[in-house]
Amino acid sequence: MRLKLRNVFVAYFLASLGGLLYALLQLGQPCDCRQRRQRGGAGPGGPEPRGGQRPPSPGGSRPPPPGPIPPELPPELPTIYVVTPTYARLVQKAELVRLSQTLLHVPKLHWVVVEDAAAPSALVASLLAQSGLRFTHLHAPTAPERRRRPGDPAWLRPRGAEQRNRALQWLRDTRAPAEPAVVYFADDDNTYSLRLFDEMRSTRRVAVWPVGLVGGLRFERPLVERGRVVGFHAAWKPERPFPLDMAGFAVALRLLLARPGARFDPRAERGYLESSLLRHLVSREQLEPKADNCTRVLVWHTRTEKPKMRQEEQLQREGLGSDPHVEV
Amino acid sequence: MRLKLRNVFVAYFLASLGGLLYALLQLGQPCDCRQRRQRGGAGPGGPEPRGGQRPPSPGGSRPPPPGPIPPELPPELPTIYVVTPTYARLVQKAELVRLSQTLLHVPKLHWVVVEDAAAPSALVASLLAQSGLRFTHLHAPTAPERRRRPGDPAWLRPRGAEQRNRALQWLRDTRAPAEPAVVYFADDDNTYSLRLFDEMRSTRRVAVWPVGLVGGLRFERPLVERGRVVGFHAAWKPERPFPLDMAGFAVALRLLLARPGARFDPRAERGYLESSLLRHLVSREQLEPKADNCTRVLVWHTRTEKPKMRQEEQLQREGLGSDPHVEV
Repeated sequence: MRLKLRNVFVAYFLASLGGLLYALLQLGQPCDCRQRRQRGGAGPGGPEPRGGQRPPSPGGSRPPPPGPIPPELPPELPTIYVVTPTYARLVQKAELVRLSQTLLHVPKLHWVVVEDAAAPSALVASLLAQSGLRFTHLHAPTAPERRRRPGDPAWLRPRGAEQRNRALQWLRDTRAPAEPAVVYFADDDNTYSLRLFDEMRSTRRVAVWPVGLVGGLRFERPLVERGRVVGFHAAWKPERPFPLDMAGFAVALRLLLARPGARFDPRAERGYLESSLLRHLVSREQLEPKADNCTRVLVWHTRTEKPKMRQEEQLQREGLGSDPHVEV
Repeated sequence: MRLKLRNVFVAYFLASLGGLLYALLQLGQPCDCRQRRQRGGAGPGGPEPRGGQRPPSPGGSRPPPPGPIPPELPPELPTIYVVTPTYARLVQKAELVRLSQTLLHVPKLHWVVVEDAAAPSALVASLLAQSGLRFTHLHAPTAPERRRRPGDPAWLRPRGAEQRNRALQWLRDTRAPAEPAVVYFADDDNTYSLRLFDEMRSTRRVAVWPVGLVGGLRFERPLVERGRVVGFHAAWKPERPFPLDMAGFAVALRLLLARPGARFDPRAERGYLESSLLRHLVSREQLEPKADNCTRVLVWHTRTEKPKMRQEEQLQREGLGSDPHVEV
């Protein structure tokens, strides 16, 4: 009895000593909060995320602010692929910088930027490298016969069709159908509320919501009854199959990969570009209304003025123009 | 001996059991990473920061992304007071939402929003409350004789002078001269690189830098030689005392408080509003060049188009306008 009790105690002593030592080693270890910042893993077959090291923010060598800490990020949170067609112009860098700052708040986001150009530009490449975002940099030139000519009104030709199709091709080439993900076509001049990205993340086929300041209205939106889309509030060509702006819907990656023929028709009539993709994917009845049954405006179709360069042209004639080596 | 050993063991058993229980209770407790998010303290005499609890983001009830974790935030990092005059218009909410998303990346920032209105609006109040930012919501109506009339060109009257002066008054009423802080006048339509805020934070008197897409040029900027401002690259009224855009400078709070007469002159001639403040504060020679001796564009004078509402007006005449209860 005496020996037995002692053995029990000795065994307990040794075991608890081990536990105590482990506990002491853990004491004072700081929380590794960074581990909780899941910026999302690349999908199967996808390239390694660039920008995972959070390089400097757009515009300079500043160490960028770390990304948001999602409070409770489910491991299978679907990735959002944000597809942004862009083209060289005076406000291009400004637009991309402010859009990148919005996207930088969104967890598990992958920015697919497609330049309307024969080759990727150094300006966009550098901006993306410094954005702190996961990104893919693509390019696709608009066919010469479809290019907008100086003086053409903005609405004459749909812009960005070939660039968005290039992104669709990249998704089909590199992503696996099983990857939980959503694809959103976000032009570089619109304004996006952060909540919009939460709304779209649960898209099963095609999700829809209102868009502010578009089509000559305060907002366009799907009309919802008992959780179903039954019509559209739109004044401009309401007879379109899907009277929706590009900013007003998102598509499940799975659905896009299951319908390899689904793409934008670059020759679509004005206003019919969105419908040219969506008619391959869903019927009106299958649309999933988001944003509190389409009663909240979470994205605005803002347009940035083309800056006037009269003084610049004058100074350039005198050989005194702004230093061309300074990137704007 | 037998009894003594048992007593020792029993005492050890009880003590270690207590420790074990405590350790078990600690297990699985998540790190409280939020404690590391230093959003900066309010200055002496200032009101409690609103929004410190990080309420939902603009646009809805979504829990917002937590703020950035400054890697190593010096305790005396100067606060940046960003003063934004704003006025009711169709794109107001969109502009403030995207600006708020930029500011949300910047540590130790306090947003002072001043409405051109006789009373604060619910739209701005709600947006600020949901922004996740430290903010102060002020208002100051423009005097009737100085109000811009419909059809007046944008440049006829300087906008925002009285609102910026209201912010200066608030700073003088509530801030202590010893508070390390910088004041920046950031209109709601410009585009700001995150690096800009790092650059301005070290302002000792008045710091200056280039502004893109302004004054009819690719950029305006101070010309710097041996670390001193020796002139300005500006084509429009270069004879102004300070040919600088509002977005092109920041002022140390201490200096503003030391010169109680320094304010914007609402009756200043077009282009002279910036000079009307700066002439109270510094000489040209005292300006501190930032952004790599004024060789980098970190802020762009972007302007947002006024949306066309032709369809809306038509539908409203038919009683079918967009639901006025939906905020845009």
